[in-house]
Amino acid sequence: MQLKVDSGRYLLIELFFMQKYQAELIGVLFLTLAIGLTSSPLAIGLILGTLVYLFSDASGAHLNPAVSVACWARDEISTRQLWSYLMAQLSGAVPAVVFLWWFTGGTYAPMPESSVGTLRFIALELILSLLFVLTYLGMMYPPRRRKNPAFGFVIGLVFGACYMITIPITGMGLNPVTTTMFIVADTLNNGYSYYYLPVYLIAPLLGGLAAVFIYGRVISPGKDRS
Amino acid sequence: MQLKVDSGRYLLIELFFMQKYQAELIGVLFLTLAIGLTSSPLAIGLILGTLVYLFSDASGAHLNPAVSVACWARDEISTRQLWSYLMAQLSGAVPAVVFLWWFTGGTYAPMPESSVGTLRFIALELILSLLFVLTYLGMMYPPRRRKNPAFGFVIGLVFGACYMITIPITGMGLNPVTTTMFIVADTLNNGYSYYYLPVYLIAPLLGGLAAVFIYGRVISPGKDRS
Amino acid sequence: MQLKVDSGRYLLIELFFMQKYQAELIGVLFLTLAIGLTSSPLAIGLILGTLVYLFSDASGAHLNPAVSVACWARDEISTRQLWSYLMAQLSGAVPAVVFLWWFTGGTYAPMPESSVGTLRFIALELILSLLFVLTYLGMMYPPRRRKNPAFGFVIGLVFGACYMITIPITGMGLNPVTTTMFIVADTLNNGYSYYYLPVYLIAPLLGGLAAVFIYGRVISPGKDRS
Amino acid sequence: MQLKVDSGRYLLIELFFMQKYQAELIGVLFLTLAIGLTSSPLAIGLILGTLVYLFSDASGAHLNPAVSVACWARDEISTRQLWSYLMAQLSGAVPAVVFLWWFTGGTYAPMPESSVGTLRFIALELILSLLFVLTYLGMMYPPRRRKNPAFGFVIGLVFGACYMITIPITGMGLNPVTTTMFIVADTLNNGYSYYYLPVYLIAPLLGGLAAVFIYGRVISPGKDRS
Repeated sequence: MQLKVDSGRYLLIELFFMQKYQAELIGVLFLTLAIGLTSSPLAIGLILGTLVYLFSDASGAHLNPAVSVACWARDEISTRQLWSYLMAQLSGAVPAVVFLWWFTGGTYAPMPESSVGTLRFIALELILSLLFVLTYLGMMYPPRRRKNPAFGFVIGLVFGACYMITIPITGMGLNPVTTTMFIVADTLNNGYSYYYLPVYLIAPLLGGLAAVFIYGRVISPGKDRS
Repeated sequence: MQLKVDSGRYLLIELFFMQKYQAELIGVLFLTLAIGLTSSPLAIGLILGTLVYLFSDASGAHLNPAVSVACWARDEISTRQLWSYLMAQLSGAVPAVVFLWWFTGGTYAPMPESSVGTLRFIALELILSLLFVLTYLGMMYPPRRRKNPAFGFVIGLVFGACYMITIPITGMGLNPVTTTMFIVADTLNNGYSYYYLPVYLIAPLLGGLAAVFIYGRVISPGKDRS
Repeated sequence: MQLKVDSGRYLLIELFFMQKYQAELIGVLFLTLAIGLTSSPLAIGLILGTLVYLFSDASGAHLNPAVSVACWARDEISTRQLWSYLMAQLSGAVPAVVFLWWFTGGTYAPMPESSVGTLRFIALELILSLLFVLTYLGMMYPPRRRKNPAFGFVIGLVFGACYMITIPITGMGLNPVTTTMFIVADTLNNGYSYYYLPVYLIAPLLGGLAAVFIYGRVISPGKDRS
Repeated sequence: MQLKVDSGRYLLIELFFMQKYQAELIGVLFLTLAIGLTSSPLAIGLILGTLVYLFSDASGAHLNPAVSVACWARDEISTRQLWSYLMAQLSGAVPAVVFLWWFTGGTYAPMPESSVGTLRFIALELILSLLFVLTYLGMMYPPRRRKNPAFGFVIGLVFGACYMITIPITGMGLNPVTTTMFIVADTLNNGYSYYYLPVYLIAPLLGGLAAVFIYGRVISPGKDRS
């Protein structure tokens, strides 16, 4: 049952029969598992890169609300599709976090080092999300770039490199959907990481929007559009 | 002497004159040596990636019964070929393990950490084998994807990334043929790792079959088939 | 407002409206941030590789005065453009260093280990800059090579590999614009690293010019020119 | 002065005016420097990969007598060219080792761990050289494979992975020309590593010849020749 997403109304349940949302769900599920099972940024980056290769044709392999919001801001997807992407991503992160709680017997609490102030926390999440989303836009959407067969590794490994930077400073954020679900689980497990949820949620989205601006101003116009 | 594998009967010994089974034998031999000689998941992943590049044209570079079973379930190879692949892989792992016993003066005993229960053990082997076999199917078989020249590194490095996850939890499994031969050697060496053989043997195969289902449902239909 | 850079006069301020100088500015800004935020040469190399992919079409992704001077010596850019590239790179490094001072509460002081003499210091900076600029010239400029889609990773990862060599010996140099700005900040912060500025500034430029010579003699003539 | 290497006699000195031997000389020089300046197998592998990209068009980027001998055994180069390749490689390793002695104030003595017996030493050098030369032959010479733009990284990174295996067991060998020159310098520096020279010298060459056999039997015939 392959439903056309752009032409007409469909029920929520139908989302799960569409290939692109299944791809986002499964992709985010594996990404969340990888983040929860290892603290090696290289392993996480390689697995994200692999997921981007696997699901790029099905859904564009967003796997991150900051990417989906940026693609929406660039009119690559409609508002309706944006909500479906976010719903699918959330539906992938929930079972992954449930599994991880059972598997590890605890929950991962994303939080910045105590010496990192709020402004620094916001700045780092925003700047590195900007870099990551800019990489995604640059390697995935202009058809000329996507032909570069390294696109999956570029996207995955720059995310891994960002985690190499953030892990000792602000933990494993840079992805509102995985971080939110880790924090929800940690809160249910009597943790206090919910205090940091707003920054983990909003800063990457703002970084993604800044990436859209820079992408349109510096990378895109000269060659891809005109 | 190049025998056509699909057209007619051949004796077991003839297997070893066919390029594709020689490729599987030599590939598994080197992979088993790499796993036995180093515990660096990056080195193992890079060597697997290289072997995939070298032997992809000769045999498809399965090098893992979970991959061969998945390819059989997708009708990429016949039942007869499946047995030949498994036989060739076993024939590569045996001399490698003999060599390693002599070289290191001991045997590697794959086993999960004592705190990891049976269910968690099964779950991790199954999920990561699913990811690995899905990657193999996605990058190797649709001709459009195989044209992506990164295919060998994607397959090899996602395997390395899975080992980065499993090494501190369940050891170096995810490949029934290498693990089985390590366990056989360890048992001959008076070890007790044979207790864990069923999981190391069956969970990756089930993960591979689950990968076939997800591949057919999410990755393949939209673009490669229709 | 897309100004043609080769045809006519323009004011300094107009530089910042040209895509290519914006690309250099933003690229150097992110590169400087990466160097200042982590001491992992792999992370820095992967981020540089990503920036090369993102900005190669806009500006050639020099991101390093040694590269710009080498491109100028090979007549890839005019003298006027050279000054604009250097100005743009400096304009990217300044805000990055200001941000890093605020973020880390200190400044990074590039300096060689005390046991490394001046001649060794000069030699290492010169030789590894030669290798890096040679890689840049080889992978970026002959159109045939640039078609190799690995070009960004080759350039970024050889830089990361050079940092793996230099970090325990001479620190993170090999780029006159980032090093100069780190040293300016360190000097304002009462540091003494300015003593080493001349070598960090001049040795990479000389290495770049040597790379131009070797490139023209060994790599270029046989196939790309004739 | 571009001399045709296959048509006529030339004096030894003329070698140094030919692009291909200059490429080998400079490539081996940088490879030897990398091995002498760092013990990070990843850095060495990345630098070798870069050198392969830079010099593949000029000389085929052998950079290793085991590769040159294997190419000679496959008739890719003539006997006369083989001697020129070896001479050029030696001419690159000598200044590198002189530089390293001055730079580090000592010499690197390649030798196996004391617990590794002679047979194991020979076996490991032979097997990993076989893998490396097989990779070189597979990725560099059939034109179809060389079109795979990952060829440089495959060759460089499998060498790095082999070093990850050998460094704690038999040191940094796998290349007769670099190892020989390290041992010559160490001997002049009153070291005793010359005792191990025969194995470091001969085992990789035998491994390379075994790679030629396997390459011709398993990888080449099915598709590249017929």
